[in-house]
Parts: sequence; C-alpha cells; structure tokens
Amino acid sequence: MSDIFELDPRLAAGTFSVGSTSLSRVLLMNDARFPWIILVPAREGVSEPFQLALSEQEALWRESMVLAKALKRYFEADKLNIAALGNQVSQLHVHHIVRFRNDDAWPGPVWGVGSTVTYTEAAAEALMDDLRRVLREPLALR
Amino acid sequence: MSDIFELDPRLAAGTFSVGSTSLSRVLLMNDARFPWIILVPAREGVSEPFQLALSEQEALWRESMVLAKALKRYFEADKLNIAALGNQVSQLHVHHIVRFRNDDAWPGPVWGVGSTVTYTEAAAEALMDDLRRVLREPLALR
Repeated sequence: MSDIFELDPRLAAGTFSVGSTSLSRVLLMNDARFPWIILVPAREGVSEPFQLALSEQEALWRESMVLAKALKRYFEADKLNIAALGNQVSQLHVHHIVRFRNDDAWPGPVWGVGSTVTYTEAAAEALMDDLRRVLREPLALR
Repeated sequence: MSDIFELDPRLAAGTFSVGSTSLSRVLLMNDARFPWIILVPAREGVSEPFQLALSEQEALWRESMVLAKALKRYFEADKLNIAALGNQVSQLHVHHIVRFRNDDAWPGPVWGVGSTVTYTEAAAEALMDDLRRVLREPLALR
C-alpha cells in the first residue's frame, strides 16, 4: 500500500473537482440530471470504509453528514441518496445524490438509468461557484 | 413526531428479523441472490441519517462499519455495498449488501435487477442462525 494518493482516472474523467477537505477530494458528477457530489478519501489502497483508520472513518461520516445536510437545504431536495458501492471503481468513494420526486429516475436509484446529460460550461461554472460558497464553511473546503 | 417506533410495514414484509442493537432493528432481506442486511434505527419520523441526534448518527455508523466488516469476512465478499436511499420507503434504513463478482447484478447495483428469489424455510433458518452467531458480539445483538 503506497501512501501517495492518486484519484482513480475513472472518477476524475466524469467529474469536476470542487475542492478538498482535510480527508477527501470533493467531486461534482458531470450529470446535469442529478446534483451529485462524491467524496473520495485521499487514502491509497482503500476500497471499503471500514479499512480506513477509525479516526478517518469518523471524519468521513462527519463530512458525509455535513455535506448531505448542506445539499438537502441548498437544493430543497426531497431525499438524499448516500451510497458507497464501488463495484466498478474499487477506490473508496461515497455518492451523495440529490433526489426530487420529479427527477428522471425517481423513485428508483440513479445508476444505470438513461444517459448522462453533461453540464454546459456556463452551468457547470455557476454550479461550482454555488457549491464552493455553500460547502466552504461546513466542509472546511480548500 | 411520535417517540413510539414502528417498523415500516414495507420493510417488515420483505425481510426476516435478525434482532436488535441498542439503536437499530437488524433485518435480513428475503432474497437468496444476495446476502443483504438492513439496519433500521428505531427512531420515529427520521428519513435522513443527519436527522438523528449526533450520538445516534455516530452509533449508526459504528454499527454499519462493524456489520459490514463482519459480513465481508463471513461471506468472503468481493465488495460490500452500503447505501441509504429511501426513495420508496422514507423510514431511514441502511442497506448492507454482500457482493460477489459472479452474482446476478455484478458490477451494477442490485436494485431493480431481475426478480427476488426467496429463501427456502430451511435456508433462511440456517442463515439466520449463522448471522446471529456471527453478529451477536460485534453488534451486541439482542
């Protein structure tokens, strides 16, 4: 296990980087159908949350809860979907997906539903600005 | 918000009761294709994990991690899928699904894939015995 963390290229490819917390990279999934943030603890060789050190497990769940709460409030979400799956990309990453009763996948999960709709450059920039403003304090975002 | 907890009938209908922890009901999904345990914090009116009291959020994540680790070891899982979705049943419940590279849904998520295969009575009883033995100590299962 190396101690030099490198974001899995498959996670990097479909996302924008919102910033970093003390533990994690914060990514915005490039799919305009669902506001969708992914936390990736910057620890090499970890695929399950319980493989993190105990203090890092606690930090991850604290970040996850703070993020979910902020997203729910900002987007006035009907529901948050929070999930660590990792069947395709084993590098530990936790999905936080804002769900609405009228979204394209409701009431099912979002995975495998339809096709990705990428953000326009302007929409992505505007959303990233908003997310950084909203998440800076609760996540101590850098 | 009442303080009398009642398990959502839709969660009760498709599951077996494995027992209770200090916080949660522990349910086995009645689907023999995937070993699948659901934690339901016994708190009325809660649909998002961040709506629990802070000490209960911590207890839930501790239970979730201990459970996931025990399941991974017992079933020699390739991956655990851990998720709080709740689009269909809003009562907070956290899925812990044991995944194998040769299971019916790999590498996708399990939701919406194919049809449930219920356990035979004998298989369910044998599995419940094993689960209670394996989870009793780590989860302080009653």
